[in-house]
Amino acid sequence: MKTLISALALATTLGTAALSDTIATGDLGLVIERAKGSVLLVDQSDRASLARIEGLGDLSHASLVYSPDERFAYVFGRDGGLTKVDIVERKIANRVVQGGNSIGGAISDDGKLVAVSNYEPGGVRVFDADTLELVADIPTGSKTIGLVDIPGRRFVFTMWDTGETWIADMSNGNEPEITKIADMGKNPYDALVTGNGRTYITGLFGEDGLTALDLWEDDPEPIRVMPNYGRGQEELPVYKMPHLEGWALTGSEFVLPAVGHHEVLWIDAQTLKETGRTKTYSQPVFAMARPDGRQVWVNFAHPMNDTIQVIDTVTKAVIHQFKPGPAVLHMEFTPRGHEIWISVRDENKVKVYDTQTFELLREIEADSPSGIFFTARAHRTGL
Amino acid sequence: MKTLISALALATTLGTAALSDTIATGDLGLVIERAKGSVLLVDQSDRASLARIEGLGDLSHASLVYSPDERFAYVFGRDGGLTKVDIVERKIANRVVQGGNSIGGAISDDGKLVAVSNYEPGGVRVFDADTLELVADIPTGSKTIGLVDIPGRRFVFTMWDTGETWIADMSNGNEPEITKIADMGKNPYDALVTGNGRTYITGLFGEDGLTALDLWEDDPEPIRVMPNYGRGQEELPVYKMPHLEGWALTGSEFVLPAVGHHEVLWIDAQTLKETGRTKTYSQPVFAMARPDGRQVWVNFAHPMNDTIQVIDTVTKAVIHQFKPGPAVLHMEFTPRGHEIWISVRDENKVKVYDTQTFELLREIEADSPSGIFFTARAHRTGL
Repeated sequence: MKTLISALALATTLGTAALSDTIATGDLGLVIERAKGSVLLVDQSDRASLARIEGLGDLSHASLVYSPDERFAYVFGRDGGLTKVDIVERKIANRVVQGGNSIGGAISDDGKLVAVSNYEPGGVRVFDADTLELVADIPTGSKTIGLVDIPGRRFVFTMWDTGETWIADMSNGNEPEITKIADMGKNPYDALVTGNGRTYITGLFGEDGLTALDLWEDDPEPIRVMPNYGRGQEELPVYKMPHLEGWALTGSEFVLPAVGHHEVLWIDAQTLKETGRTKTYSQPVFAMARPDGRQVWVNFAHPMNDTIQVIDTVTKAVIHQFKPGPAVLHMEFTPRGHEIWISVRDENKVKVYDTQTFELLREIEADSPSGIFFTARAHRTGL
Repeated sequence: MKTLISALALATTLGTAALSDTIATGDLGLVIERAKGSVLLVDQSDRASLARIEGLGDLSHASLVYSPDERFAYVFGRDGGLTKVDIVERKIANRVVQGGNSIGGAISDDGKLVAVSNYEPGGVRVFDADTLELVADIPTGSKTIGLVDIPGRRFVFTMWDTGETWIADMSNGNEPEITKIADMGKNPYDALVTGNGRTYITGLFGEDGLTALDLWEDDPEPIRVMPNYGRGQEELPVYKMPHLEGWALTGSEFVLPAVGHHEVLWIDAQTLKETGRTKTYSQPVFAMARPDGRQVWVNFAHPMNDTIQVIDTVTKAVIHQFKPGPAVLHMEFTPRGHEIWISVRDENKVKVYDTQTFELLREIEADSPSGIFFTARAHRTGL
């Protein structure tokens, strides 16, 4: 059977696209190749790359979301490009340049709407996931950041310039109903939403502290939390503001990369108060929880970005440290957490590790790899 | 390309099964048709049935798990049959009758091992997920219940007769290393594990109360919780013991169907102490949380099993009640919770509802439908 399948795969890949032997999509993923403007289709079970899909434009800081059937990826490029990639046929299905400077996107819970947030012109544009036709244009008059999807065909996003958060409710068709929440703080630079879509938290560049919203409230009000979170009085040099989407929920606590400081912070998930700190190797960028919450894996800012530390969430102690290689940019766990894939940009490799034994299982060639996105994300909120 | 794909499908399946145009598997599912011994392949996005696959034997109380690529389902039949269904080619890929009286199964976190628990002969058998060859036979000398998978290629299961729980660790190959925990209580009849694989909880038929294990401990010890949980002094008639896998985690609390009583119980997820009760229409069977945890949907035991109640998890109040029809046996949410599919056995229908508006969106013909299982389960632990 394998021979037959290979022959078929060969036949179809010669020209353009391929079904190949992988026609179920649950264990696939895409790796952003930032320099080349391409994405690498990968298979978690085989720990292999399957195909390269090119022509996606500027993919520095690119991210993507998946359709509910795990067939299409919507890739948000820094150049405003929105590219729909068909991972079954292994080709670009559609592409529009929707803005001048895009910084991320989201997909509605029903999979019908894809939203993109832009710096220039500032605002959010919503597209039909099927056709990429513009469905709604929501100018905000500000650089717009922290765009996430939440249940009920809604999107939430925040304005760098004005410090407002808006909720766009599109449950009654394609005309967004906007709720505006003022006073989120000075220059929000990023935001996240918890996996249940309830708590939205913005990080602030212009002042210390974080601002939370309880989206289950009828009229969410800004809640100031972690007043000391930020660069602080010492004004330490900050090489890279940490990614808030790297917040890790580990049972009853979040783990959060500190800003500038060499530590991660532990925060009670209910009260959003600090419960502890763990010293780390350098300035953390991502602190990512293994799906079971037992471990947190941390990478670091340039120039210390060749190292990973693994923290046990029960003891809050570092239990493992190693150097995957130069410029560790991103990590992605398999959905049930038994393995982790790590982008080592300056070695042009993605490396796969066992999360129980820490054994290196495989190295996969990739051109300046950055973000790794597995298709299981299709089934989750707020990524 | 569509034509090419159809041609390939025809070629590879020899004209029997169909690939059709649905080759991404992220939004598919199977519905157990208990009387017919068949499963119905369904598509969540299209709210449609795609194909019927027959010949699975006795499917009363059947359940199933999915391979990581969301291509294969392993169906555990009451007659001891273990059937591997290929949902891409829409046919039975393999089938063995592995025991006399099977009551459920699990799949290891790496997707390589499928385990089945049996009443007769009592024990657990572990099979190669690829070939269905027997990999390990673990006789227990007891009816064996509550089999779940947890991280690290491990399975946990419990003995009705002896009240022991065993952990089978298969991380070092196919020779299970067994840890035995005695004293879980009198006649455990069912068990569940929390979504993170940490807390295993058994329900007891022979006495009141529940027994928990913290599987993150090196030597887990039985912890008695909820001492009043059970049939209690009054010895109310119990029409059906509630399914523990129907436990719902809603942020910081679990919701649990009471035994015999017309109520669900709220339990603090950290302390496992009771925090409240909500009166319900009748004896609850399943209490299932919408994936965001904002709602819990409850069905009821015969003869009141035509009704569903929806409880808001913030107010703990019933916010909606309706009658889908005679013999509501099971419910399954879409992975992001915007819709729910409900089996109405005696009407031979599966009904699909919007979880925000409660609107009936679609009715799908099915022969005595019971369990509904969407492929997103592939990515979760302990189901």
